[in-house]
Amino acid sequence: MSQRYVVALGGNALGNTLPEQYKASRLTAKTLAGLVAAGHRLVITHGNGPQVGMIYQAMEAGQKENPKMSHVPLSVCGAMSQGYIGYDMQCALREELWARGLDIPVASIVTQTVVDPADPAFENPTKPIGVFYTEEEAKRIAAETGYTVKEDAGRGWRRVVASPKPIDIIEKDTIKTLLDAGHVVVAVGGGGIPVARQGTKLLGQGAVVDKDFASAVLADMIDADALVILTAVEKVSIDFRKPTERQLDSMTVEEAKRYIAEGQFAPGSMLPKVEAAVSFAKGRVGRKALITLLERVEDGLAGKTGTVVTA
Amino acid sequence: MSQRYVVALGGNALGNTLPEQYKASRLTAKTLAGLVAAGHRLVITHGNGPQVGMIYQAMEAGQKENPKMSHVPLSVCGAMSQGYIGYDMQCALREELWARGLDIPVASIVTQTVVDPADPAFENPTKPIGVFYTEEEAKRIAAETGYTVKEDAGRGWRRVVASPKPIDIIEKDTIKTLLDAGHVVVAVGGGGIPVARQGTKLLGQGAVVDKDFASAVLADMIDADALVILTAVEKVSIDFRKPTERQLDSMTVEEAKRYIAEGQFAPGSMLPKVEAAVSFAKGRVGRKALITLLERVEDGLAGKTGTVVTA
Repeated sequence: MSQRYVVALGGNALGNTLPEQYKASRLTAKTLAGLVAAGHRLVITHGNGPQVGMIYQAMEAGQKENPKMSHVPLSVCGAMSQGYIGYDMQCALREELWARGLDIPVASIVTQTVVDPADPAFENPTKPIGVFYTEEEAKRIAAETGYTVKEDAGRGWRRVVASPKPIDIIEKDTIKTLLDAGHVVVAVGGGGIPVARQGTKLLGQGAVVDKDFASAVLADMIDADALVILTAVEKVSIDFRKPTERQLDSMTVEEAKRYIAEGQFAPGSMLPKVEAAVSFAKGRVGRKALITLLERVEDGLAGKTGTVVTA
Repeated sequence: MSQRYVVALGGNALGNTLPEQYKASRLTAKTLAGLVAAGHRLVITHGNGPQVGMIYQAMEAGQKENPKMSHVPLSVCGAMSQGYIGYDMQCALREELWARGLDIPVASIVTQTVVDPADPAFENPTKPIGVFYTEEEAKRIAAETGYTVKEDAGRGWRRVVASPKPIDIIEKDTIKTLLDAGHVVVAVGGGGIPVARQGTKLLGQGAVVDKDFASAVLADMIDADALVILTAVEKVSIDFRKPTERQLDSMTVEEAKRYIAEGQFAPGSMLPKVEAAVSFAKGRVGRKALITLLERVEDGLAGKTGTVVTA
């Protein structure tokens, strides 16, 4: 039976550099095309850490070389990264579908994600972005721009930005319309371009949105059958790396919440993935959030592996 | 009556720098939202000359600063420019529609345009791109990369790329589906990312596609009612800047072809616009290609100004 999946790619599905991304997106496309060939409908979402970092640094370098060049805000760098990654991903998927004799449209949607400017994350920015500075440079830039800068693990000073919670996906209707029409959609790249809604205005924010959280919001809004969060492990573990470690085949939302309260999942790693899975699964009975490896996604969706979170 | 328009924005609709683009896109959105409010369906296309130039130069500067950074091909810079411009344009349009109480979806589609690798344009690249080099640097880069470099009007040496003719728009079905559903679509940015089809593969090309030609191909493929080419003059002239100059209210395809043969239109300026208008209008009786100013587009579509090309 045709199902509607939101598939959030992990970092290894795209790699860290341009040639890595070209290769990785082709491999990723093979697996995803298998799901499409089986009749399922896909929205593919992805992170943009290495890509937006590269773009942001290049824009800084460009400005240094040419002082007439305008500063490029992080929100615009995020938009650029959506074009860059979306292009590779839609091209790779189209090629892979054609190779299987399937003429199914694939397209990337530039996506804005609404965040709340009152989100407490803005009071304590933690995500480093861009180049390293000396303390002196960092403090001058902070004074000039209002950016927050922090010392980064003895390696120098960097700009840090907030990671607020996503609350709405501006382009959700477009994504849903295409999904309904049977197109494959690439969207919510890098968690979406963070924007704050002020009346009828959308103001780009110097922030980053967690792509798994944003994918969960989208999956909820388009009422997908499953949210698939691809990562570097086949299953979620409790007592991770302890002698008592246990890999989980499934969790109810209640169980997941208990594990979260126990501190079972590492912040910045498995915790946001489990939280994203919970936020989607709790929406209605019948929804499934799956956390597994890209290579195991077909088996995971067939209930043979991975960790499934259900209401 | 609701009409389907492909509107190709001119360079002044977006400006040359990031702050200019922010402002210009808001002004442009006011005019375009008027057409949407009147019940028409819009695909908005745009150039990317200054934007892709800025990105390409920043990527070169980034690589100079960090030799571990990969070279970013022009096709990928074009994809980035689609994210950048698409974000501004879709945001500006959405805001303007909301301000009018219209909750109509707007989205930008990353677009690939198919070109023929045997296009004669590839034998004589003419479009300068990126930074200026000394002759020595330019010749070294040409030897290392296979790029074509040329001396640019006494200002130094630059890479030059071809401008092949567009023959297909890969994402046409997605654009048409959204248009049918009443969404406003931003697409074919910078003429689209030029790709050559090789079997089931799409290979990014170091080239640029004329946005008016690409818009005409799209308008033909989705069978739009009108192709609107916005530019810096209200009407097309013959005997331009001569005492005998005459502004044209309309041309048939046959008349336009005769003027083209007479050399009435400047290559790289009005000529490609008239050629694009002709290539769309000749498709069927009833189609209208309009060339005018952004500020006069409503009057132009109402037949009150601009130059209209019909079969």
